[in-house]
Amino acid sequence: MSSTFGRLFRVTTFGESHGPGVGAVVDGCPPRLPLAAGDIQQALDRRRPGQGPLATPRQEADQVEILSGVEDGVTLGTPIALLVRNGDQRPGDYAELAQAPRPSHADYTVQRKYGVRPASGGGRASARETVGRVAAGAVAAHWLQLAYGVEVVAWVEQVGGLGPAQVDAAAVTRTQVDAHPTRCPDAGLAESLAQAITAAQADGDSVGGVIACACRGLPAGWGEPVFDKLEAKLAHAMLSLPATKGFEIGSGFAGSALRGSQHNDAFVARGDGLGTATNRSGGAQGGISNGEPVLFRVAFKPPATIARAQHTAGYDGVARDLAAGGRHDPCVVPRAVPIVEAMAALVLADLALIQRARG
Amino acid sequence: MSSTFGRLFRVTTFGESHGPGVGAVVDGCPPRLPLAAGDIQQALDRRRPGQGPLATPRQEADQVEILSGVEDGVTLGTPIALLVRNGDQRPGDYAELAQAPRPSHADYTVQRKYGVRPASGGGRASARETVGRVAAGAVAAHWLQLAYGVEVVAWVEQVGGLGPAQVDAAAVTRTQVDAHPTRCPDAGLAESLAQAITAAQADGDSVGGVIACACRGLPAGWGEPVFDKLEAKLAHAMLSLPATKGFEIGSGFAGSALRGSQHNDAFVARGDGLGTATNRSGGAQGGISNGEPVLFRVAFKPPATIARAQHTAGYDGVARDLAAGGRHDPCVVPRAVPIVEAMAALVLADLALIQRARG
Amino acid sequence: MSSTFGRLFRVTTFGESHGPGVGAVVDGCPPRLPLAAGDIQQALDRRRPGQGPLATPRQEADQVEILSGVEDGVTLGTPIALLVRNGDQRPGDYAELAQAPRPSHADYTVQRKYGVRPASGGGRASARETVGRVAAGAVAAHWLQLAYGVEVVAWVEQVGGLGPAQVDAAAVTRTQVDAHPTRCPDAGLAESLAQAITAAQADGDSVGGVIACACRGLPAGWGEPVFDKLEAKLAHAMLSLPATKGFEIGSGFAGSALRGSQHNDAFVARGDGLGTATNRSGGAQGGISNGEPVLFRVAFKPPATIARAQHTAGYDGVARDLAAGGRHDPCVVPRAVPIVEAMAALVLADLALIQRARG
Amino acid sequence: MSSTFGRLFRVTTFGESHGPGVGAVVDGCPPRLPLAAGDIQQALDRRRPGQGPLATPRQEADQVEILSGVEDGVTLGTPIALLVRNGDQRPGDYAELAQAPRPSHADYTVQRKYGVRPASGGGRASARETVGRVAAGAVAAHWLQLAYGVEVVAWVEQVGGLGPAQVDAAAVTRTQVDAHPTRCPDAGLAESLAQAITAAQADGDSVGGVIACACRGLPAGWGEPVFDKLEAKLAHAMLSLPATKGFEIGSGFAGSALRGSQHNDAFVARGDGLGTATNRSGGAQGGISNGEPVLFRVAFKPPATIARAQHTAGYDGVARDLAAGGRHDPCVVPRAVPIVEAMAALVLADLALIQRARG
Repeated sequence: MSSTFGRLFRVTTFGESHGPGVGAVVDGCPPRLPLAAGDIQQALDRRRPGQGPLATPRQEADQVEILSGVEDGVTLGTPIALLVRNGDQRPGDYAELAQAPRPSHADYTVQRKYGVRPASGGGRASARETVGRVAAGAVAAHWLQLAYGVEVVAWVEQVGGLGPAQVDAAAVTRTQVDAHPTRCPDAGLAESLAQAITAAQADGDSVGGVIACACRGLPAGWGEPVFDKLEAKLAHAMLSLPATKGFEIGSGFAGSALRGSQHNDAFVARGDGLGTATNRSGGAQGGISNGEPVLFRVAFKPPATIARAQHTAGYDGVARDLAAGGRHDPCVVPRAVPIVEAMAALVLADLALIQRARG
Repeated sequence: MSSTFGRLFRVTTFGESHGPGVGAVVDGCPPRLPLAAGDIQQALDRRRPGQGPLATPRQEADQVEILSGVEDGVTLGTPIALLVRNGDQRPGDYAELAQAPRPSHADYTVQRKYGVRPASGGGRASARETVGRVAAGAVAAHWLQLAYGVEVVAWVEQVGGLGPAQVDAAAVTRTQVDAHPTRCPDAGLAESLAQAITAAQADGDSVGGVIACACRGLPAGWGEPVFDKLEAKLAHAMLSLPATKGFEIGSGFAGSALRGSQHNDAFVARGDGLGTATNRSGGAQGGISNGEPVLFRVAFKPPATIARAQHTAGYDGVARDLAAGGRHDPCVVPRAVPIVEAMAALVLADLALIQRARG
Repeated sequence: MSSTFGRLFRVTTFGESHGPGVGAVVDGCPPRLPLAAGDIQQALDRRRPGQGPLATPRQEADQVEILSGVEDGVTLGTPIALLVRNGDQRPGDYAELAQAPRPSHADYTVQRKYGVRPASGGGRASARETVGRVAAGAVAAHWLQLAYGVEVVAWVEQVGGLGPAQVDAAAVTRTQVDAHPTRCPDAGLAESLAQAITAAQADGDSVGGVIACACRGLPAGWGEPVFDKLEAKLAHAMLSLPATKGFEIGSGFAGSALRGSQHNDAFVARGDGLGTATNRSGGAQGGISNGEPVLFRVAFKPPATIARAQHTAGYDGVARDLAAGGRHDPCVVPRAVPIVEAMAALVLADLALIQRARG
Repeated sequence: MSSTFGRLFRVTTFGESHGPGVGAVVDGCPPRLPLAAGDIQQALDRRRPGQGPLATPRQEADQVEILSGVEDGVTLGTPIALLVRNGDQRPGDYAELAQAPRPSHADYTVQRKYGVRPASGGGRASARETVGRVAAGAVAAHWLQLAYGVEVVAWVEQVGGLGPAQVDAAAVTRTQVDAHPTRCPDAGLAESLAQAITAAQADGDSVGGVIACACRGLPAGWGEPVFDKLEAKLAHAMLSLPATKGFEIGSGFAGSALRGSQHNDAFVARGDGLGTATNRSGGAQGGISNGEPVLFRVAFKPPATIARAQHTAGYDGVARDLAAGGRHDPCVVPRAVPIVEAMAALVLADLALIQRARG
């Protein structure tokens, strides 16, 4: 009962990894926005696996079809339904999973929750679930860019404890991020990260990482006090992504070690309002954007599905070794970059509309 | 428009720090739950300031009145309205704030968002806003305890970078936590933390910290896939608290440095189902509780309001020094312990009811 | 779990008829709206019983207290909590209700739903529950009037099958409505309606009626296609009121007897857009306001609680006679006029904000 | 922003009449429900136009595809996405609509609301929008039947003022309803209704009608007090349907003419609880089902789009005659029968789950 996100700019996703398709319905996108399938396809292409030695070999065309909500290249203000057909399904790869749940994967908890689980793998707990998010997020990002000039750019900051990347959050572009297969725009670090991923894969293992994200160009005033603070909605969005374990905004955990006199961002005159001389707040104060870039970080654990044998127990409680067949990424963070951006865009578009209603 | 949290177990809070009162309406609490004002008061008493040298000297009686939803000591299933009158108001202390927004406080963003702000201080951005959360959370925690035996216990893990406390998350009790004014149950560390707070106060400064929390006794199956994962709701709840900058579940950011073979929690037979040999997942897989303790951590920045002068700018953009009058905590984490528990209880009660509906 | 109404302009009500008090929290009211307790009190005074021979003798001061959300006479954009203390409680009057549920009252269904019911009468099923609606609706109406010039005026159209009143929906005022105790502005009919009420009361009986309502001054464009059409939200709001049995917009049931050529409202030039020559649509087409007055009608059954004995069954299934003690209205429609207006205002304010968000 | 209906059993619909397709996403359907495309198709077939002389000649295959949420013939508890491709589009028929909005249709209000409208006709205001509702409602009805034995049966009660049909609401079946093209199970009346429709069509005109609906087999306890009363949700659902003008539950408007002693439903022993000797309440008291059949009626206006010329104004305000091309029904009520049933099922399934959560 939880496949809808957002209050006014609202996305509902659907689809199992091995069913007919996956997709999303975007309700609340403002009318008269120029929108073509290509605007969405470019985001899906960035998410798509099979793009190099660092990713899963699963080949997915992932062509999006706009089923509704757009006519003559312009949004109508009605629900925009987006469909991506599944292909290249090999449910046979998952036969062993009938006996034992994969450690740290959702096989067991899904079974306990529903009393049934997809026979052919992760179902909604699969990374493929994120196709709908990325498609919907591309619509949100497109609107944010055209309506407010807002830019959302994420990048890989760490892999396997290596890093952090040195990146200028105020200026980094998606082109720079995509220049390296790891999506780490710190050229000096990127190759090390790639090697860490390759090494994990060679060992039949996986490795985690950290993604950083900057949202630039927000006006002051987005984000709702108390329960729907900007950082609360972002944290919700990011921890709803598969494999995430942590979220920080601005100074994050490191900020908890500081004193107020060190941490506070002094105000300075800027434009016709105020800016801050530093940005330890990460672009929000009291849950409301202050006009500075919104900066946050997301921790991803190493993927749970690994090729090497793990000693675990079957559904029957009997100890056994499990070695995953099927296809799987040794590291999700390069592909997760557009997913993080998509969720950030969905949060911002929703908060923008809510603030607009206030008049 | 964001003062309501939860879908089935739902709380709506209200109140400014300097108005007549603060409180909450809890809608969706199951009927026939024994409930007395004392069950709520004990939580408010733990939150109350003025309890020692480490806290603000503001004296607040904070007596809760149950306005509705309870008759003959039992809940009716109708909204439970809870009111705590404000007292001890000294709006004069805030006169200087009319000229300049406090750095890293919400004064500026509230003004930009609403075009008006409470003349007498933080309004909804004040820590006093959390009274309603704690009162409502006490109802949720009470129900969770009676209906499922669920226990939620939080403690101070770090202050000013000191720590982390060594604590047995599987066994620590609220009594142990409350044994020291810092609410750090690691006796060896607690005194150091107290000194860090006292030192900051002596300098007219403030200091941040980290709170850890364990939720024990959850059955497998709570938490909704995709957007309302257990960890997503907890992250949302925690980052909605004033002064929070980060959230981790289980292994958190440190987990991103590991390989899958190191991070995965192997299954073992337990009871009539499965448990895990380790708990790097933090009690949830795929966003659904797995029956292990739910473990998470929250980073709090140092309070923004400090006595020592800060160089900043006024609303008019002119540079000036600002030294806060009024009352303020040098460190919020000891008082934030029951607040973290309250929000965790609200998340869990809501997810419990949603799973119950599934039948 | 259903004490909240509205998406952006949102009200949460609370309170039993015999507990400490009743009230509402209004979240989402725009900031900078001039608002005083008197703006709310005047609506509560219109709702208050004990205003003449046609109403219940229960004396309630019903003084509203604004607990939050307003400072210096202006809304802050934060939740506006409104409290009305209960007084004059005589739970003893309800002692007989422990044995047998009142026919056509909610005693039985509340017991079946919750497994518990207020010992002292109707609880949330009491007409007193509407105090919170009226208080919240007064805020909505006040905002609609100041922000858009929207007027909401309801009146009694029928009592006990007498009527309908002849009223100019385009011009009738609240002053005209309140000129007669029945709130029927058709002077020729009003006295007959009063006699019908008095006669029912003399017989220890009750009588039903119909309220009509006109909402004037809406711009075109309010109301959301598909599920949240203007008429759908109004119907929801009205059928959520105690004792309601029917709702019509525009031509209503009578319109179903017509042909399209008779029913269609032809467009005519008006101002800088179009108006319609007739208004059988009742001010909305496709669920969206068209700029004409929104006209609707609500049917109220005769109150279930009557003094004369009724042959019915006890909770134990044994047949018995039941004669209600306690205080009760012989006819609710005069008092329901401000309640209908309040709910209409809440619907309109919410739809106005949603349309505003669309920009 | 209003294409989602329901809180726990939740449907989101999408699709324009002349785009690629229409459909729905059903989120919250319980897991382990046997479900095949045929269970949905049979409902769509009942809704489909082109089934006789009384309906529009538009030929639509309306084959549903289940895109997700079902595996091996059983629901997974995940979102069930349903797609029906559009075919047989003739946008050219609508060319004239570029100049003038159809009287009493949504052309004008959609344009005013969004600043854009589908060039090819009604878009979301088309009757085709109801395909998604019917598909989703079929899932809800299927679950209600299997889980609770609940039956929902609607029928045509009046057309053009003829009627009402004499029908035994406690026993009438869908087979009986479908026995006549008008879907009026009163054999003596049905032919008259058919003639009224044929006559209207022959005149290039349309005619309205009334649908009655019985929901049988509900336990006591469904429906939420205050804002989400059973009758309030039903009224919301019904008035959200295109062309509806009124809703009544139980005695409806006629009940407003009665006295309490005439209207009240006396309790009688029934099974292990209580029933009522009469059912003027329509199956709910205080918004909560009482175990009696839920009985309601819905008024439909005559379709706005008619072939004969109407004197109206163009978007430019200039008076002109408009005669609709395109295909259109002379009367919607026969086809609206399964649509009313679908919406009723969606309301009941949602309230059932909410009550289940209460435990």
